[in-house]
Formats: sequence, structure tokens, C-alpha cells
Amino acid sequence: MRKGEQTRASIVAAALELAARDGLEGLTIGALAERMQMSKSGVFAHFGSREDLQIAVLKEYERRFVQEVLVPGLKAPRGLPRLRAILARWLDRTAIEAASGCIWISGATEYDDRPGAVREELVGTVRGWQRELSRAIRQAVETGELLPDLDVDELVFQLYGVILVLHHDGRLLNSPDALPRARRSVDRLIDSYRAGPAGDGPGQGARAGAESGSPPDRQLARAGG
Amino acid sequence: MRKGEQTRASIVAAALELAARDGLEGLTIGALAERMQMSKSGVFAHFGSREDLQIAVLKEYERRFVQEVLVPGLKAPRGLPRLRAILARWLDRTAIEAASGCIWISGATEYDDRPGAVREELVGTVRGWQRELSRAIRQAVETGELLPDLDVDELVFQLYGVILVLHHDGRLLNSPDALPRARRSVDRLIDSYRAGPAGDGPGQGARAGAESGSPPDRQLARAGG
Repeated sequence: MRKGEQTRASIVAAALELAARDGLEGLTIGALAERMQMSKSGVFAHFGSREDLQIAVLKEYERRFVQEVLVPGLKAPRGLPRLRAILARWLDRTAIEAASGCIWISGATEYDDRPGAVREELVGTVRGWQRELSRAIRQAVETGELLPDLDVDELVFQLYGVILVLHHDGRLLNSPDALPRARRSVDRLIDSYRAGPAGDGPGQGARAGAESGSPPDRQLARAGG
Repeated sequence: MRKGEQTRASIVAAALELAARDGLEGLTIGALAERMQMSKSGVFAHFGSREDLQIAVLKEYERRFVQEVLVPGLKAPRGLPRLRAILARWLDRTAIEAASGCIWISGATEYDDRPGAVREELVGTVRGWQRELSRAIRQAVETGELLPDLDVDELVFQLYGVILVLHHDGRLLNSPDALPRARRSVDRLIDSYRAGPAGDGPGQGARAGAESGSPPDRQLARAGG
């Protein structure tokens, strides 16, 4: 990595911490320059505008999210084990972010009525993640572990709800029960869509497959606004 | 209502609209004075501080919420009909607020790491509402319509999740499916906790009661911090 790229990466990492605390809209070039012990123009040299910086922060957030949640999850066998592995990591990460702040969840209320490039980026990232979840759910339908007629988008919606309330109760209400409650809620949801007799094993039609699936190191594919 | 009270009520109503759009933290005495065509000191005369104004806005929000969601819900017979009536109104109101902005949901991410009186007020309101939901759920257990061993707090948590994702998908993603999806998700949740054979009627042990229950015109009781 060249020097310029290194500096840019350090600025983005510092900006990500600031944005987790103060929100993406609370991110100022001034505070960031102070944190980096750089001049404002030094920070500006790496980003054309504050908006470009905010978008870079969202992309870095997404990169880390993919590395921590999706990539390890994809190592689990295709089907229910993979879906459960992804969800377990998503829950753990959300519980940690309920302490440190999550720019994805706070960004959703910061930008929900603020049109522009940052909002587009945020929406694209959320949609990309929903597609990854949909893919993992569909694979668990294909292996026969989940019901063939389940509404994939609706299950994604319901799982997202558990994540949002985990963040809400953990962060606003400081509830110590939020994580175990969210884990049980996800299990209950998944179980309610299980094919065949309930139990520990995979459903009757299971093809135990460890097919490699998606390339694990890409960012979430975008469908655009 | 005396003149001073009328003016105060108009200021709070205007502040509620501004806060729905810009967030409680985005609420400034300046913008409010302009909206009211009053001087800043005129606005200040009715509120000791910006914080007092924010708290007054939260109380007014809560008053309207109780009038729109809880009071009509309490007219339904105690048990599952009442619980469903409250949830139906909460879903409808959330879908409308996904368009206009909800200071309760955006406030949760604005104040989750900002200690102080406004946060305390917000937390007290959320906890008060959770207690009302718990009461309605417990009554549906008492009428025999919901399972006797259900974890009331966990069902409240799961219902809250559906509301949060309805707001998220409706507002950030402009998803037209969010409301029907949320309604189905709530029905599915409630059904998964139903006692006795599934069906349209009340559970076997139902005591069809229209007992008057809680006084309908109070604000949500507070347990404090």
C-alpha cells in the first residue's frame, strides 16, 4: 500500500470511529483533522468533499461487516448451517455495536428523509445485505431444510426486525437481556419455517452440501437506488 | 384554556412537527420562533430551556400516541381482541410516521448515547408503553387465548422489532410492502403463541370479558430511569 493510500485508510478508520459516536451527519472535517493531527486541507486532499468522506466511511463499514459476518458464515455448509452461522455473527456484531454505535442503524434515521449520494449509498448497502440474506435463506429452501413455500423477503424483514430491536433495547434501554432474547427470537423464527419434523438434524430433503457458493471476499453487490 | 396555555400548546404542536422532520436534536428555538412568528424570547418565556421544550414535545407525542393507539384499543374486549386492536393501531400509526418521521424512533438513535433529562424522558416513555403492551398480553394469557407459559417480555421485544423494521423499510427503503408484511408478521407471532387449536375463535379457556381495565385517558405510567 502506498503512503497516500495508507494515510487515506487511516483517515477513514478514524472517521468510522467518530461517525459511530456522533453519527455520519455529526462527522466534521474539523474534528477529523484534530483527531488525525492533520490540517483540514490535508484531510480534504484525500477526499473531494465531506460527502465523499461519508461515502468512504460507509464503504469501509460495509467491508468490515462483510469480513466479520458474511465471509466466516460462508465457510459453513450451504443451507441451514450457513444461514445460522451468518445470523449468529450478525447478532453478535449488533450486540457489540449496541455499545459502540452503529452507523448503519443510526444512519437509517439520519438519512431516511435526506436525499442525496450518502443516502443512496446507505440504501444500496442495506439492499445488498438483504440480497445476501435472501440467498442464504433460498439455499436452505433448496436443501429442503426450510419450507418450500416460504416468503423469502418476509423472513428477511422479520430477521431485520430482531436486529433492530436488539440494537434499540441494548443501546437505548441498556437491557442485558437483549442479546439472549434476540438469539431465541431468531431461533424461533427459523424453527417456524422449518420443513419436516422439528429436531436437531436437517430436514428430510437435506442435501448436505458444502458447495462453495459466493466468492467470499467481494463487497455486497449493489442494485442501485 | 387560558391564553398563555393556548400559546404554549401551539408552540409545542409546531415543535412536534419540526422535530418529526429534523429530529429532537435538530429542534432550535430560532426555527421555532420563525415558524410561530414570535421572538425567540417569546418562545423562551414559555419554556425555561431548549431541554424543557424537548421534554414537552416528547410528552405531547406520548399524549397523542395514547389517544390514537391505546384509548381506542381499550374499547375492544379484554384479551386477544384488545391486544390485536392495539397492535393494529400501532402498525397503522407507524406506517403513517414512516412518511412523516417519528420522534420516538429517531430519538432512540439520537439519544441512545446522550445522557440527560431528554433521554430519561424518552426511556421512561418507551418503558411505559412496553408495560401497556405487557398488560394487554398478560390479559390475553388470563383469558386463555395465549399460552400460559409465554414469556411476556420476549413477545413485547418481538413485536417492537416488527414495528422498528416497518419504520425502517417504509422510511429508508420506501418499501410499499412494509405495512402488509408487518401485519402478517404480527399475526404470525401472535398465532405462534396461541393456546389451543388454531382457528378464528378465541382459545378454549376464553372468558369473553369487556371488563373496563385501565383508565383510558391517562398518559403511560412511568417507572423512572
